[in-house]
Amino acid sequence: MTRTLALLLAAATLPAVPVVAQPAPAASAQTYAPLFAAEVDRAKRDVDASIRAGVNVPVPKDPGGGFTHEQHKRNYRTIFEGGQLYRLTGERRYLDHVRDLLLAYADLYPGLGPHPAAANQVPGRLFWQSLNDSVFLVNAVQGYGAIRDALAPADRKRIDDNVIRPMARFLSDGSPEVIGRIHNHATWACAGVGLAGYLLGDRDLVDKALKGLDKSGKTGFLRQLDLLFSPDGYYAEGPYYQRYALQPFVVFAAAIDANEPERRIFEYRDGIVLKAVRTAIDVTHDGFFLPLNDAMRDKSLRTEELYHAVAIAYGATKDPAFLSIAGWQGHTVLTPAGETVATELAAGKQKPWPFASRLLGDGPDGKQGALVLLRSKADASGPLLVAKNSVQGMGHGHFDRLNWLYYDETGAVVTDYGAARFLNVEAKRGGRYLPENDSWASATVAHNTLVVDEQSHFAGDWKAGEKVPTRQLAAALDGPTRYSIAEIAGAYKDVTFRRALLMLEVDGLANPLILDILRGTGGGRHRYDLPLHFSGHIIDSDIAFDRKLAERPVLGKANGYQHLWVDGEGTKAGKARLTWMQGSRFYSYHMAPPAGTRFIVTESGANDPEFNLRREPALIQRVDGAADATFVSLLEPHGEYDASAETTVASSARVTALEHRREGDAALVLITLIDGSRIAVVVADDVAAAAKHSVTVDGRALAWTGPVGRFDLARTGAKK
Amino acid sequence: MTRTLALLLAAATLPAVPVVAQPAPAASAQTYAPLFAAEVDRAKRDVDASIRAGVNVPVPKDPGGGFTHEQHKRNYRTIFEGGQLYRLTGERRYLDHVRDLLLAYADLYPGLGPHPAAANQVPGRLFWQSLNDSVFLVNAVQGYGAIRDALAPADRKRIDDNVIRPMARFLSDGSPEVIGRIHNHATWACAGVGLAGYLLGDRDLVDKALKGLDKSGKTGFLRQLDLLFSPDGYYAEGPYYQRYALQPFVVFAAAIDANEPERRIFEYRDGIVLKAVRTAIDVTHDGFFLPLNDAMRDKSLRTEELYHAVAIAYGATKDPAFLSIAGWQGHTVLTPAGETVATELAAGKQKPWPFASRLLGDGPDGKQGALVLLRSKADASGPLLVAKNSVQGMGHGHFDRLNWLYYDETGAVVTDYGAARFLNVEAKRGGRYLPENDSWASATVAHNTLVVDEQSHFAGDWKAGEKVPTRQLAAALDGPTRYSIAEIAGAYKDVTFRRALLMLEVDGLANPLILDILRGTGGGRHRYDLPLHFSGHIIDSDIAFDRKLAERPVLGKANGYQHLWVDGEGTKAGKARLTWMQGSRFYSYHMAPPAGTRFIVTESGANDPEFNLRREPALIQRVDGAADATFVSLLEPHGEYDASAETTVASSARVTALEHRREGDAALVLITLIDGSRIAVVVADDVAAAAKHSVTVDGRALAWTGPVGRFDLARTGAKK
Repeated sequence: MTRTLALLLAAATLPAVPVVAQPAPAASAQTYAPLFAAEVDRAKRDVDASIRAGVNVPVPKDPGGGFTHEQHKRNYRTIFEGGQLYRLTGERRYLDHVRDLLLAYADLYPGLGPHPAAANQVPGRLFWQSLNDSVFLVNAVQGYGAIRDALAPADRKRIDDNVIRPMARFLSDGSPEVIGRIHNHATWACAGVGLAGYLLGDRDLVDKALKGLDKSGKTGFLRQLDLLFSPDGYYAEGPYYQRYALQPFVVFAAAIDANEPERRIFEYRDGIVLKAVRTAIDVTHDGFFLPLNDAMRDKSLRTEELYHAVAIAYGATKDPAFLSIAGWQGHTVLTPAGETVATELAAGKQKPWPFASRLLGDGPDGKQGALVLLRSKADASGPLLVAKNSVQGMGHGHFDRLNWLYYDETGAVVTDYGAARFLNVEAKRGGRYLPENDSWASATVAHNTLVVDEQSHFAGDWKAGEKVPTRQLAAALDGPTRYSIAEIAGAYKDVTFRRALLMLEVDGLANPLILDILRGTGGGRHRYDLPLHFSGHIIDSDIAFDRKLAERPVLGKANGYQHLWVDGEGTKAGKARLTWMQGSRFYSYHMAPPAGTRFIVTESGANDPEFNLRREPALIQRVDGAADATFVSLLEPHGEYDASAETTVASSARVTALEHRREGDAALVLITLIDGSRIAVVVADDVAAAAKHSVTVDGRALAWTGPVGRFDLARTGAKK
Repeated sequence: MTRTLALLLAAATLPAVPVVAQPAPAASAQTYAPLFAAEVDRAKRDVDASIRAGVNVPVPKDPGGGFTHEQHKRNYRTIFEGGQLYRLTGERRYLDHVRDLLLAYADLYPGLGPHPAAANQVPGRLFWQSLNDSVFLVNAVQGYGAIRDALAPADRKRIDDNVIRPMARFLSDGSPEVIGRIHNHATWACAGVGLAGYLLGDRDLVDKALKGLDKSGKTGFLRQLDLLFSPDGYYAEGPYYQRYALQPFVVFAAAIDANEPERRIFEYRDGIVLKAVRTAIDVTHDGFFLPLNDAMRDKSLRTEELYHAVAIAYGATKDPAFLSIAGWQGHTVLTPAGETVATELAAGKQKPWPFASRLLGDGPDGKQGALVLLRSKADASGPLLVAKNSVQGMGHGHFDRLNWLYYDETGAVVTDYGAARFLNVEAKRGGRYLPENDSWASATVAHNTLVVDEQSHFAGDWKAGEKVPTRQLAAALDGPTRYSIAEIAGAYKDVTFRRALLMLEVDGLANPLILDILRGTGGGRHRYDLPLHFSGHIIDSDIAFDRKLAERPVLGKANGYQHLWVDGEGTKAGKARLTWMQGSRFYSYHMAPPAGTRFIVTESGANDPEFNLRREPALIQRVDGAADATFVSLLEPHGEYDASAETTVASSARVTALEHRREGDAALVLITLIDGSRIAVVVADDVAAAAKHSVTVDGRALAWTGPVGRFDLARTGAKK
């Protein structure tokens, strides 16, 4: 048994020594590297406070954020940390406290029925949803494992039989509707059940965790590894849940590797576990996860899941780029893997994380669409264009095919609302997803993509969306003209739309330009709306808005439109512009939409009886009664405002004209800058890489190969 | 002449050596302390770029933020920095470039008339307002002084006669309506004129700067020192302008001290210049100036003015607390005073700035009211209650007598809108104050103080307000019960109001409670509105609001009310509560207002045709038809939300009851906490420090001396 638990706690590359039998002397704490020493100190403060407060294992009552919820969370952390502290220090009080806590659960747990605050999730025993029970078990096993061999046999038996095993049974045979899914809740359940199985030496539990309750392999952990990540390690539900899902994947994988090294779990499916960790780091900006689908905007790499993931991935790869992430995190885990990270970081072995453009294929085969990240700098907080051409993402997916976001040094510029939820805030419906998560946050109009006839994609039915992939048609990840081209057919019954998003680096401009060419084609006549949700304060516009100054109507009745206040509506012939300011930078959004387009300035927050929504601005381009429509838009970041130095430069746009026309089977866009120079961008309908194309501009023939041609035309001549 | 210019540049305590005649060798740059070395490097980058770009002295045309405006600003910085670099390095190119710039101004300046973009300010020659011309001269003299002795006599004469002297003449005899005021614009003019006088050896200019154009002493720098600061060094226009005004005060004072040490200028009026610097640092939170009156919220101690002020004040005092401010600033000035700061900071001599509660008397005699700062920690970003019981503050003053603000570790909690302005953003009316600065930002309803009959104080006439001081009646700056009591009579014709603001530290609560007792007494029947402007997202309330869900009316017609959207209106018997969340903390605002009070939730932003306003929430307590009214409110910061750890504690309030009644000539407030303990706070009408009072609570006699009594009553007993 000693071997099992030692391995369980060890990083994959560490020797499987029976650490519990030979606890380190207390004085050794002084030799820890700073990052690990800080964790040990923090854990000691927490656990010592818990010891002083005494064992508190309340009868479950409250939903998320309520007292019993938070107390059981504190307890599993105390069990985890207390176990590690005992392993590290050998101090008896840690062993005693963890034992006493677990014995209190041994009294409580067997008598519990479904949680009284259960809502629309599967109820747990300790928590309102069984998911949290799984998290409890994953943590508790790791803490218990560190003290188990040192316990009196009777105590060990009581905890085994009244806590660990019944929890594992509840989460496996007792909850087939959870563990049998291909879903992150099931991964947590598998990890808890599997860890418990290794600890108890219970092969049945381990096999059910790995291969499903029927051990057929149609469900279970390995099947989840097959189906939940794309071959690029992208998790179908999006970055927020990728983060969340990661912890049980890496912790259970490390345990499998330690207990059954012959499985070579880190090489499974071409190294999918480690790919998933790398991709999780890539789907961030400035350390914060891109808030696609249901997502809290304040989640960063500074979370428990990523401390585990980085420590385990570093142990498995020794890639020094993980160390720089650990340095940014400023935290690690209390396990031997965390200690290694801290030691090698202190030795200066870290290298910068190589942030770069990526095309993350989505779906189990990687061919159901993609999440495309275009970056112009190898920098955590530099320009980042995100094209969300991915799959639906199950129940947490939003109706936002071909959505885009833009980030740069000022933060999120073209934004995603994320989820309508106040995590763990009891007064906000127990911290659960709010009604506005369905009525607003997941609706198409809450995103930066095409809305047809004021309906959400797939009529707002995610199960319908699950059946329809997105087509990623082409992409270029490097050079001065990075781009993504994708198409979705089936989001609307009779409208297909295609979008090219391009990141153009231009000599003489400090920031890239973002060009967006969106073309909808369909039968019949439709209302086409293209919203842009942005962050910042409106500076000015050349659109003459009819402002709603003293009464503010609502834009529509349903599908998210009921949540939009109208601030103004206007038209403009030719190119139109809206400029806003965020932080130290200005952003001009230039539009060359179809003739007759109206521009509507809105703000979220209408029909929100409980003040659940944030109030954020958007600009909607609207065309009525069209069969086809092409929206050409250009985002231009410019200028600098410096509050300290009281200087402002380039507060007006450098782009003076934006023109668009069809040239044969291609869209030609001409961008004119203030110095008179022009950039011609041509996007062919034929996306074949080898196809040759040409157009004529100002009597000059421009020829290119592949879907995108770009020609920088000086004032008096042309250069490629 | 060498002596004059050397002294001009030297900190007060440095020897007056002729540094220009013996420039330091270039290699010495490597020996600078880091803070100064960084400034030298930055200045070299700037000036070398200016040298490469060549001399560019355009004909003045644009308003603030426009090209010619920014170019002339760049030029005076280049002159200042280039001069210092020549002094430090002796490198010829710096001398040549500064000379060439000044010679270009010698060609341009004499032919200039009033600036073409002049608006409602006195026009300058180079800039749209003469203020900027003064700033130009203050900088240019300091740069020119560093090269002047090294110039060929003909060049020196041209610059003296065609730039420095005519500028000084324009800003003195040529602008009596500016330099003759008691106002920060006049201080800048005096500083420019006086520095020019010392440099040119022109006693007439110096005397006019010191004592006014008629040399009577009724105006001029010394009179400004008498009248613009209170004896505590508080500047009547408020913190934002205190910062702005500081630079000419300290720079000119340092020059006076160097050139006429016998004036003992740093001892003038009990050391008013240094008091002003200390007070400027005190009127900040987390390094940012409190945005009282017309103020940009993004102004911090990291500004040029404060780099000069800190360097000069450190030179004059050697107080090591200034060094910690310099460390926070991360910048210093290129002068010898800045070099000393950098050297001694590098030597580790700094001490923390002693942030503490302060009562800053306002008005020239310090008896026209006060700004009261109550702090519970000696910490730049800890809890801070601000009671604005000060004078009107001239044309930049807002109509907000007895206003209050609250800050803590999450930032501004109870807020002030500051100014409606986008500094230097040309599209926003040239960067000037916007119409909404008058119609909204300065209106009483935009503040957290009493509005009677929807009118601003003094009917919105600042000149009327100038005549009426505020009465600071009592204050306690230390201990667990800090407070301020003040009264204003005359803001409304027939209503006087008094406000007690108390910061209560309570055993067992992590954050202080803020208690507010505001009592209006008047003849006739009135509408009393008490707004609270706060920062954060509404979590919940026990008020049943009639929500304006699908159409949003405007609250009123004028005096700022036209800018308020109504989100909902409701009533509640007994105590009412609104809870919001900001960052990691929750805030519950408990109210025990007069019977019949309605509660209105609003947001700024209505009737704002140019999108000039930020949209910020407020809660208004409204009583109609009352002669007298007492509003008792309690702000309770509580709980903690941790996004990384996914934990939330104490998201609901600890305060369960708030009661208020008159007991004889005192207001008795009873605060009940969730554990059943109570706090009794009694505020007597008689504010005499020696007056003895008593009340009876639950049959127990509570006696105290002075205006405020506080009694912490345990569940089953009482303790003082």
